Amino acid sequence: MTRIDGRKNNQLREIFLERHFQMHPAGSAIIEMGNTKVICAATVEDKVPPFLKGTGTGWVTAEYSMLPGSTDPRAVRKSNGRAAEIQRLIGRSLRAVTDLSTFGERTITVDCDVLQADGGTRTASITGAFVAMVEAFTTIYEDEKNFPVKDFVAAISAGISASGDKLLDLNYLEDFETLADCNVVMTGAGELVEVQITGEKKSFNRADLNELLDLAEVGIKKLFDVQKDALGNLAWYVGRID
Amino acid sequence: MTRIDGRKNNQLREIFLERHFQMHPAGSAIIEMGNTKVICAATVEDKVPPFLKGTGTGWVTAEYSMLPGSTDPRAVRKSNGRAAEIQRLIGRSLRAVTDLSTFGERTITVDCDVLQADGGTRTASITGAFVAMVEAFTTIYEDEKNFPVKDFVAAISAGISASGDKLLDLNYLEDFETLADCNVVMTGAGELVEVQITGEKKSFNRADLNELLDLAEVGIKKLFDVQKDALGNLAWYVGRID
Amino acid sequence: MTRIDGRKNNQLREIFLERHFQMHPAGSAIIEMGNTKVICAATVEDKVPPFLKGTGTGWVTAEYSMLPGSTDPRAVRKSNGRAAEIQRLIGRSLRAVTDLSTFGERTITVDCDVLQADGGTRTASITGAFVAMVEAFTTIYEDEKNFPVKDFVAAISAGISASGDKLLDLNYLEDFETLADCNVVMTGAGELVEVQITGEKKSFNRADLNELLDLAEVGIKKLFDVQKDALGNLAWYVGRID
Amino acid sequence: MTRIDGRKNNQLREIFLERHFQMHPAGSAIIEMGNTKVICAATVEDKVPPFLKGTGTGWVTAEYSMLPGSTDPRAVRKSNGRAAEIQRLIGRSLRAVTDLSTFGERTITVDCDVLQADGGTRTASITGAFVAMVEAFTTIYEDEKNFPVKDFVAAISAGISASGDKLLDLNYLEDFETLADCNVVMTGAGELVEVQITGEKKSFNRADLNELLDLAEVGIKKLFDVQKDALGNLAWYVGRID
Amino acid sequence: MTRIDGRKNNQLREIFLERHFQMHPAGSAIIEMGNTKVICAATVEDKVPPFLKGTGTGWVTAEYSMLPGSTDPRAVRKSNGRAAEIQRLIGRSLRAVTDLSTFGERTITVDCDVLQADGGTRTASITGAFVAMVEAFTTIYEDEKNFPVKDFVAAISAGISASGDKLLDLNYLEDFETLADCNVVMTGAGELVEVQITGEKKSFNRADLNELLDLAEVGIKKLFDVQKDALGNLAWYVGRID
Amino acid sequence: MTRIDGRKNNQLREIFLERHFQMHPAGSAIIEMGNTKVICAATVEDKVPPFLKGTGTGWVTAEYSMLPGSTDPRAVRKSNGRAAEIQRLIGRSLRAVTDLSTFGERTITVDCDVLQADGGTRTASITGAFVAMVEAFTTIYEDEKNFPVKDFVAAISAGISASGDKLLDLNYLEDFETLADCNVVMTGAGELVEVQITGEKKSFNRADLNELLDLAEVGIKKLFDVQKDALGNLAWYVGRID
Repeated sequence: MTRIDGRKNNQLREIFLERHFQMHPAGSAIIEMGNTKVICAATVEDKVPPFLKGTGTGWVTAEYSMLPGSTDPRAVRKSNGRAAEIQRLIGRSLRAVTDLSTFGERTITVDCDVLQADGGTRTASITGAFVAMVEAFTTIYEDEKNFPVKDFVAAISAGISASGDKLLDLNYLEDFETLADCNVVMTGAGELVEVQITGEKKSFNRADLNELLDLAEVGIKKLFDVQKDALGNLAWYVGRID
Repeated sequence: MTRIDGRKNNQLREIFLERHFQMHPAGSAIIEMGNTKVICAATVEDKVPPFLKGTGTGWVTAEYSMLPGSTDPRAVRKSNGRAAEIQRLIGRSLRAVTDLSTFGERTITVDCDVLQADGGTRTASITGAFVAMVEAFTTIYEDEKNFPVKDFVAAISAGISASGDKLLDLNYLEDFETLADCNVVMTGAGELVEVQITGEKKSFNRADLNELLDLAEVGIKKLFDVQKDALGNLAWYVGRID
Repeated sequence: MTRIDGRKNNQLREIFLERHFQMHPAGSAIIEMGNTKVICAATVEDKVPPFLKGTGTGWVTAEYSMLPGSTDPRAVRKSNGRAAEIQRLIGRSLRAVTDLSTFGERTITVDCDVLQADGGTRTASITGAFVAMVEAFTTIYEDEKNFPVKDFVAAISAGISASGDKLLDLNYLEDFETLADCNVVMTGAGELVEVQITGEKKSFNRADLNELLDLAEVGIKKLFDVQKDALGNLAWYVGRID
Repeated sequence: MTRIDGRKNNQLREIFLERHFQMHPAGSAIIEMGNTKVICAATVEDKVPPFLKGTGTGWVTAEYSMLPGSTDPRAVRKSNGRAAEIQRLIGRSLRAVTDLSTFGERTITVDCDVLQADGGTRTASITGAFVAMVEAFTTIYEDEKNFPVKDFVAAISAGISASGDKLLDLNYLEDFETLADCNVVMTGAGELVEVQITGEKKSFNRADLNELLDLAEVGIKKLFDVQKDALGNLAWYVGRID
Repeated sequence: MTRIDGRKNNQLREIFLERHFQMHPAGSAIIEMGNTKVICAATVEDKVPPFLKGTGTGWVTAEYSMLPGSTDPRAVRKSNGRAAEIQRLIGRSLRAVTDLSTFGERTITVDCDVLQADGGTRTASITGAFVAMVEAFTTIYEDEKNFPVKDFVAAISAGISASGDKLLDLNYLEDFETLADCNVVMTGAGELVEVQITGEKKSFNRADLNELLDLAEVGIKKLFDVQKDALGNLAWYVGRID
Repeated sequence: MTRIDGRKNNQLREIFLERHFQMHPAGSAIIEMGNTKVICAATVEDKVPPFLKGTGTGWVTAEYSMLPGSTDPRAVRKSNGRAAEIQRLIGRSLRAVTDLSTFGERTITVDCDVLQADGGTRTASITGAFVAMVEAFTTIYEDEKNFPVKDFVAAISAGISASGDKLLDLNYLEDFETLADCNVVMTGAGELVEVQITGEKKSFNRADLNELLDLAEVGIKKLFDVQKDALGNLAWYVGRID
């Protein structure tokens, strides 16, 4: 069976990922997964949240928002529960590969703003935010110390279609029609960071879960290559330990 | 190895679950899992969100909040991202076992208010909210139709301790110390509804994931018995199809 | 004439008052007056409002809120004028028996959360909050100084029914039907702290006022006994001056 | 003993009360009690709050706010608990003399904006708001029906000074220094509508209460004359029943 | 052609401008331009916005708001885009004649509250706010330094009527009917500070613009005389350089 | 004298303007003026603001916001006075060339989101928003009626440098250093729609004003060509009257 856009079940959409998309932030990236487009901007501030003051430890956090014209109908400008949930996921994913003790009491905020939404905006945000964050860290990195980013991290969605097919990297229409779908966040070493599976329309079993995780792993490994290309010589820093 | 409160690794905390805890809502329950205590109140309103108007379909949603005295330090009264994320999870879990087409254009709102927090408030909320929701549906059920709740649903947490042990039903201290933890929502038929695994401190692999899911399944099956006891003769309605 | 619940005109509802209801706050209590149930949690923070900074003086304040399931119809979660008015009344009542100069620049916040409302939630909150506050002060009391709480304080409602009867401790239905009602806050020494009389439906005269105050005094004296029982040996501290 | 501004204990401050102060609202008034100055604007809208829709009954409500330059230090523009409490008091006082069934499903909103604060702003607001409300009702009054305002209503403060004197109509400095103070709202027939006594600094007894009420009655009777003068021939409508 | 209120095209409305209208603020003024009435209160605070901390430089800012009874229909109490735009204009106009380096790290906030609106509230606010600001600066002026206010500043509106007439100082009805209108802010030296021309209903050309500016200049010169009268001997300070 | 980026005084920055940048909105455009980049999305909704209900007339409005990564330091996500002022300017500019009576009770909202800020974001927003609006109107245009957009509209900034030079199309650094600057909005017919001149740092005279307007006219005429290129065959609709 072929998918609506002609892809194979285990095939990613066409990807475009470029760093330094904006001139002002310390790090930035634009990521396109098919028609889904997200801008990621990583800024560095010399302060930490209250619970870290005086600990010498830094923080990485994220904000997620959709531009009004990114969806149909128009996305109203206001914070909501879905955005809160997504930005917490992005923040945890980035912190999972970051050594917060290596860059002092600073906060890296990665803003993920969706220019155009066609499914998979949260996973695209994680994959793009990683590139923006690495770029930002290189601007404050003092080379006698360990680089704060210990490993790559990227994310992808997968889902079970009405006909029972397992599909990788769902676009909006597929996402709408799947019975259950998952978002998987994985490190360069192949370890899982977050797995979120939702079967609101139809519950799933353990075999389904394992098939979806297999699919996701295939996709994420390709995303690491895309991240490395986008980072270019900055990729050298990731995981660097003196 | 023994846990701080003397439990075995696959042992739930002591549970207390009682329905009709409040006199005003259509359905209500109090659930205690060890020191964690949550009040669940299900109210019925004759209206639906805008996207359902005119469809003849109902809605089930949830709100989650912590009383100021439920935590140390005091929980400030304001909505936040964590609460938004949790109430969306509770809502999806309840809808997964509900036939929204069977009760007209009505909304069931289940308010989960944490009286005392000691880990596992979101999973306790789901388990308790189910009982409150069933009680509420019996007040509007007209017996010539199918009962809106198709199956039981309950939830539990599990995690990987620093020493590598897999632990069921984490209390706050265990939750704080685990490297990775998951929340699992399962139906009476043994199908998965939601699986959320987070490895912010340390990522995990597929074998870990499967062990945690095994543990969770053990715990959730016991929770179904507790729910049936609390519902008493109302348990008869769940899954009833004419 | 008998009241709807069979009480005499000068009779309180059945009362349950227990301290240390929650494990996290420095002090806590649950109070039930018939079907009205309120949780009171007193927490201590090492800071004061701006107008007290540098004065060496402490502060006592309160917050009041209703759980969504505490009323019919469901109480929407948002601050409102009624809650603001009530929490200011609770705060003033507690400060009237507290020596703010004896416990340094600390703030005691007493959160009063209504689990179930059936009339008299503000007066029940004052009576319960007092117990929670005393418990909280014992956790920071250094015995060579005077105890910050100088006297007992409790509160009750009374009202004039449509038939002209003066009734003590109104439940919701009585409150709804009375023409004028009052809330009285009194100290252990029998002095008045607050008297608020409202005759929105029908104004009242001085003789009415005096009868209502007589009734309230009868009720409040019984509440002091209930508070003493709930405090147990902590009651010894109240009014203690070295 | 003489008061700081030379008044006798039972003497009101100099009063100025004028109606039709603003050209746009249906009714308006400015009231000055010494240095306290409040603008009252009564507007009529053809709608009622949700709980009155379809009942044929109208509503009277109030809003209270302080201009930034009305106090020292500057009053920040934001709603707060004190304002909420005061505007609820004003609304209840006006409704106590209004027959809500006589003017259809309309809402009269009386905005009380304090131009200058020197004590007694809430009681001045009630006294002035009454005049604005009467003026507003005359614009919608159809003479074959009963006039909606059944009687006069006015308000004044009184308090107990540190030396034990009972003082009428406290200015800011007196208010700050009194041990207990009360606000009394009374109808033209001499009946009480609201009595609020607060003894935050020192509690009071029944004898104190009666003396304060005697004082207030003296003051309020003079305020009725001032209201009648300000209303001029509109005073004729008050209490008019066909 | 005569205007609706009988004025000539280049004639201002009747003006009343008086300083020290309120007793609490450091400076204050009331200005009436025909039926438009605005209270201006200037307060001094010993703090500056974050971007000026540590620079030794002060700040002048403004807030603008309409009392609910100032318009028909009633103006709802909430901040809005129009108010934000106007208060920024007032702040810039005042800063244009102020030497921010002469009065230390202090902020002058001028609150402009519209009592009654009949067109031209923003220009009346600027003209009145200037007087309040000068009065406020005299309270903190230490005479061995230069006075912070270097020159007078005032503002007026002008517009093009449907018949092509150019009119000075538009009232509300004229403002509503003009095709294009402008607000002009000018210094005592005759220099322009702000010119804002809007042709939402019909665009205009350069000749129109020059005629409107000519008209405005005529009006503003008269406003300077009114400001000098209102300031009395305080006018001596403006522009004073040691 | 040469400008920091080598441009002549009357030279625009390099411009890129492309329509249909986003797939979801009815109309969209991206505009780049040098390093300033703005996305404009025009959506159509079948409703109008309350003041237009039942009039048969449509509405055009705008929202303006800066992405967090668009500036240095990071732009915090919250509405503010500057944004409110700018979006009102954009809305007025678009309405000045639109016949609101020709497209029924619909609202066109043009969202202008700044991707990167380097001066002139409000004028770039107007120039780009026009293109997005025209594209949106073509999707609802029924050819037997007049096209709602009557003429072109574009905007540009100009300013007076510290050395007295008059400069066209200021970048951020120039904008920061100019003594006075203006924003000019002009129609295709050469008429002015909005002129806003601000001399916060130094006031200006009539000759300055005329020179700035001359400069702006030169720039805006070039912008019309750019808009026509971006619109392609859609440019044919503008000003079309049957």
